[in-house]
Amino acid sequence: MTRPKLEFWFDFASTYSYLSAMRLPGLAQKAGVDVVWRPFLLGPIFAAQGWTTSPFLIYPAKGKYMWRDMERRTQALGLPLVWSDSFPQNSVLAARVAQLALQTSQGVAFCQAVFSAEFGQGHDISQTAVITDCLAQSGLPDGLIDGAVEDDNKLALRHTTEEASARGLFGAPSFTVASELFWGDDRLEEAIHWAIHHGEAGRGRDHG
Amino acid sequence: MTRPKLEFWFDFASTYSYLSAMRLPGLAQKAGVDVVWRPFLLGPIFAAQGWTTSPFLIYPAKGKYMWRDMERRTQALGLPLVWSDSFPQNSVLAARVAQLALQTSQGVAFCQAVFSAEFGQGHDISQTAVITDCLAQSGLPDGLIDGAVEDDNKLALRHTTEEASARGLFGAPSFTVASELFWGDDRLEEAIHWAIHHGEAGRGRDHG
Repeated sequence: MTRPKLEFWFDFASTYSYLSAMRLPGLAQKAGVDVVWRPFLLGPIFAAQGWTTSPFLIYPAKGKYMWRDMERRTQALGLPLVWSDSFPQNSVLAARVAQLALQTSQGVAFCQAVFSAEFGQGHDISQTAVITDCLAQSGLPDGLIDGAVEDDNKLALRHTTEEASARGLFGAPSFTVASELFWGDDRLEEAIHWAIHHGEAGRGRDHG
Repeated sequence: MTRPKLEFWFDFASTYSYLSAMRLPGLAQKAGVDVVWRPFLLGPIFAAQGWTTSPFLIYPAKGKYMWRDMERRTQALGLPLVWSDSFPQNSVLAARVAQLALQTSQGVAFCQAVFSAEFGQGHDISQTAVITDCLAQSGLPDGLIDGAVEDDNKLALRHTTEEASARGLFGAPSFTVASELFWGDDRLEEAIHWAIHHGEAGRGRDHG
């Protein structure tokens, strides 16, 4: 029998993606759901909506609320949170390296290290030195950085972002189970439940 | 000892406010939390953000997702949902009448009747006949409609909306416990929990 599968779409610049990146592995393992980590870039998707930066900057009331909400959520989850006035960070390098890291068994550890460096410790993830540290922490060679900026890898990230847009994504984190879309860390549990009961592996249970 | 208190801010035009309006009374009663229902208008708040209509229309991907998300949520809650192409509806009359209805013990029943008529049955709540029906269903006299359009009542709604904005609200539903703000139906449980443990009534428990 096929195991239930979920795709996790995230941007390293996204605060709520941090929450999902830290919560997901444990929840998915417990539920027996396989997860495909799909780093993408919100920038082009926001640009298509007419936004040149994060909506949390464009709409200050929403931004102020987001940070307070993140404080409450991280506190409840026991995660560190460092507010940074450089929000949103440039996440292109991190995403490019993540694509290669995720082809290894250390990929999830790398992604979590990046989110922790950024939102847990306030480091600037556009800096190569920070990414090198994250690679080291997750047992990966810093040679991945050279591969990350090669044309085919850059193009792959562009394609993932185009696929995200084509599949109706408009924010991060998002989760997909086949064509079913879930937006926001608040929908993580529902997405896992959907993967089990309505995904390909679950079709025999709920449907005909 | 003071009972924990929560303010529930909603606009009758808001789909997710429908979910909270139907869920809140049961949850609050079980938790022993008093709820103040505060109808307000999103229109002026959206206008201040540069939006002339619902963000679900301005951003089609978000709008398409919202309806699918509402389908899933209402199905899980056992609530009816009728999609309407007149979204967002004009909610001014409903909000004005609700202000008076909420001064009686039938106010919550009236608000739920309006949300059900709109999102459960697809009726146009800007129509006086629909509001009259909702009043009848909740045991209230249709004379409230005359009072609703009197100047002081219209002004009261404007003041509530100004207060919402001043308190940092940028969407609906929202919940406040003193100065603490929670946005979205997804935060309802957290807001109730906050009212119990951090609200005025809970200060003796968590704080000094």
